[in-house]
Amino acid sequence: MTAMPTLKTYETPVLAEWTDYNGHLRDAYYLLIFSYATDALMDHLGLDSAGREASGHSLFTLEVHLNYLHEVKQGEPVEVRTQMLAHDRKRLHVHHTLHRPGEAEPLAASEQMLLHVSLDGPRSAPFEGVVLERVLALAEAHRALPRPEHVGRVIGLPG
Amino acid sequence: MTAMPTLKTYETPVLAEWTDYNGHLRDAYYLLIFSYATDALMDHLGLDSAGREASGHSLFTLEVHLNYLHEVKQGEPVEVRTQMLAHDRKRLHVHHTLHRPGEAEPLAASEQMLLHVSLDGPRSAPFEGVVLERVLALAEAHRALPRPEHVGRVIGLPG
Repeated sequence: MTAMPTLKTYETPVLAEWTDYNGHLRDAYYLLIFSYATDALMDHLGLDSAGREASGHSLFTLEVHLNYLHEVKQGEPVEVRTQMLAHDRKRLHVHHTLHRPGEAEPLAASEQMLLHVSLDGPRSAPFEGVVLERVLALAEAHRALPRPEHVGRVIGLPG
Repeated sequence: MTAMPTLKTYETPVLAEWTDYNGHLRDAYYLLIFSYATDALMDHLGLDSAGREASGHSLFTLEVHLNYLHEVKQGEPVEVRTQMLAHDRKRLHVHHTLHRPGEAEPLAASEQMLLHVSLDGPRSAPFEGVVLERVLALAEAHRALPRPEHVGRVIGLPG
């Protein structure tokens, strides 16, 4: 059995308004690109705007870890690949990597914990219905994928 | 001896273009606010644009951890407080928290590892001259501050 590959969740060129004084993608805008990739993951799971409105549920970001591996310049095309690492009744543990199109080497990596919430609180809520089915299907599809390099890290200086 | 307080490094209202479908600050724009706070920290250390040009050095972000603790709505005023946690010859380990003005409770926290680089590579380079003096002075001023709550975390589901 071969694992389903990671999902390609976002593609964009690096926009001028995302760059710093030096013409490179600013740290926060790597996360904006990953944030749009999370939106696409929500679409995939049935939590697009129609799904959010119909179900009254959405995903909130609880925690994010980012590793910056290479600089990217204005105008360069990039794409995000997304892997589900784990889940429980209410949470998704996902991993995004940023790449030049078709290249294996990541430019950046982001590990994220997302919480399923009922928007009438907001309060945390278990996945249900079609969203639960899709979470389980994606988890199964990604079960055999290798663990990405930048997962489970602690920030700190040696010593 | 009392520790110097954390630095107030940034103040802004939550801008409309930073909010999501729900009128709340989007995850990536918490990091943009922290990124502007890091710019202000660079100014404090003598690495403002004039200092970068004169010295040929800057700080690159290596790694970031973010904890989202409370939602913030469009138009709300927020401020960033910054603490130096540790440093070595080339790196700064810093911590930002986002607050409503004057409130102790954080809305979000971010731990960051920043690398001092010579822009002619770019390649990592030891702090030197006035920047080194200011790094040492800030480290000394923050030495007795308590360790913030959201430091050294690993993302993961229990079990």
